[in-house]
Amino acid sequence: MKRQNTIRILITGGTIDKEYDPLTGELTFPKSHLSNMLNQVRCRASCVLEEVMLKDSLQMGSEDREEILKKCADCLENRIIITHGTDTMVETAQVLGKNVKRKTVVLVGAMIPYAFDASDALFNLGCAFSAVQALQPGVYITMNGKIFTWNNVRKNKESGEFEELTC
Amino acid sequence: MKRQNTIRILITGGTIDKEYDPLTGELTFPKSHLSNMLNQVRCRASCVLEEVMLKDSLQMGSEDREEILKKCADCLENRIIITHGTDTMVETAQVLGKNVKRKTVVLVGAMIPYAFDASDALFNLGCAFSAVQALQPGVYITMNGKIFTWNNVRKNKESGEFEELTC
Amino acid sequence: MKRQNTIRILITGGTIDKEYDPLTGELTFPKSHLSNMLNQVRCRASCVLEEVMLKDSLQMGSEDREEILKKCADCLENRIIITHGTDTMVETAQVLGKNVKRKTVVLVGAMIPYAFDASDALFNLGCAFSAVQALQPGVYITMNGKIFTWNNVRKNKESGEFEELTC
Amino acid sequence: MKRQNTIRILITGGTIDKEYDPLTGELTFPKSHLSNMLNQVRCRASCVLEEVMLKDSLQMGSEDREEILKKCADCLENRIIITHGTDTMVETAQVLGKNVKRKTVVLVGAMIPYAFDASDALFNLGCAFSAVQALQPGVYITMNGKIFTWNNVRKNKESGEFEELTC
Repeated sequence: MKRQNTIRILITGGTIDKEYDPLTGELTFPKSHLSNMLNQVRCRASCVLEEVMLKDSLQMGSEDREEILKKCADCLENRIIITHGTDTMVETAQVLGKNVKRKTVVLVGAMIPYAFDASDALFNLGCAFSAVQALQPGVYITMNGKIFTWNNVRKNKESGEFEELTC
Repeated sequence: MKRQNTIRILITGGTIDKEYDPLTGELTFPKSHLSNMLNQVRCRASCVLEEVMLKDSLQMGSEDREEILKKCADCLENRIIITHGTDTMVETAQVLGKNVKRKTVVLVGAMIPYAFDASDALFNLGCAFSAVQALQPGVYITMNGKIFTWNNVRKNKESGEFEELTC
Repeated sequence: MKRQNTIRILITGGTIDKEYDPLTGELTFPKSHLSNMLNQVRCRASCVLEEVMLKDSLQMGSEDREEILKKCADCLENRIIITHGTDTMVETAQVLGKNVKRKTVVLVGAMIPYAFDASDALFNLGCAFSAVQALQPGVYITMNGKIFTWNNVRKNKESGEFEELTC
Repeated sequence: MKRQNTIRILITGGTIDKEYDPLTGELTFPKSHLSNMLNQVRCRASCVLEEVMLKDSLQMGSEDREEILKKCADCLENRIIITHGTDTMVETAQVLGKNVKRKTVVLVGAMIPYAFDASDALFNLGCAFSAVQALQPGVYITMNGKIFTWNNVRKNKESGEFEELTC
């Protein structure tokens, strides 16, 4: 039995969840902020949060992407949001795009952590929420206010922005 | 000729744009924050901003809704986001829903102003951005992480949340 | 017996503690933020917080000022910070200045509530903390980065700034 | 001729001024935020800002401390605030404490950058402002809501808090 209206949120880390550690002066992942974020924005869509890992996406290997893929395939929900670091988000999207069938999966992250004043995290998360509810099955990325399909997107390293391969 | 990919953002006021006036201690509309918001979140979707009015939606009358309707009908774009106070957002959605054809219109607002710490403004705006790009023509509201059609939504005055008329 | 090093913080309301009520769209005082503020800034000075009232200072009458005066006179501490609305802060300072002896009392508030992005609350509170610890007995106001004595200060209603009567 | 009432603010870097670089994911010093901070808090005390360097204080050497000392000695003002990284703030305070005469110098920093939500920067800066105006000549540190003299303070590396050597 599928849960038609519930959104599963798979948390994998990335800048969106990074926090400043005052003792070390470094950015770390003490815990995910997703639950706080959804409270703040008064989200009433039915959601299940699952923390798969808390990693900088540059530290992710193929076994991590396999784990994320397995989570997408195995869960009861047809609508899945994955919070993910931006550096290898496209790579994970490709693994999912080639293998996930009959589910709507949206990858999303942030260029500035949620815990910082000028963050893009909440806006991007909002983009993911509507995308996962409105789009047909497939694998997508929502960044920079746009919706990308998994096989027509790259992160421009110089601008830090996501863009289509072909315009 | 229609501009297929550009989103027109009609600004009409509402809590999303309210600001604290330190001299009077009241919430006012000195100017819209939409442009700042889109800069902060690194939005790269093609947008045109138009300030139609800056009103508390409780102060809107039928002539205001007519003006908003006319803006929707007359503009070149097929995809329109309207920022709007939440108190009469459903009313305006009904006027538009009965009259706008062949365009995707999404109304959005906030329960807490953008200028406040715990605002839902950026998340809601993100929801509107994906909705306006992903949905078929029609009139919608994106609040509380959900997408509502204009004829199946109300604001629950007690909880301050939007909900379906029928579940 | 006096507690030499402990600071008593008398909370009386004012803009510093105002919050946005999403249901009514008005600024209200659901509770004081002082405890949260001191946690956020990692304050380790010995403090006792006491909520005397939560009022807009325009709503304060002479009986309120008498109550604040009594609290200052009766408490064990020699160092007292009073959070207070800015509109009648000078009036309260005058009542205290004429009557409180042998204690250092600092009144402080904010032009923008703590809960808003661009607030002056934490800075002003910091000014009050050092002032109450460094200054000789007397009654002072710390606003706009300055230290004022109770009998040489006014709030300029046009600029919203505190200034000396004589420069 | 000394400028009696003007405060010189010597900016040397430290966490207080760190910012998140979205392209590298690292904390950097693109520019000082001191001017923005003083604007936000509506500071009207007479100030002169001088950017001496923008360094992580762990990267400071004795030549940097000599430069800061020289700036303190040479400037016209008798009241000086130095923004500084917390890791070697005590070391710099000792160099200044042994050498600066007839001036009030206050070192201050932050455990969380100004640009982050839960920052202690503005509160600490407020503490420095009142301290520099209220205290007799000498060298001080204002952190954690307390005022320390240069020869009776250390940073507790485990708690991240400043404390007296002797209580």
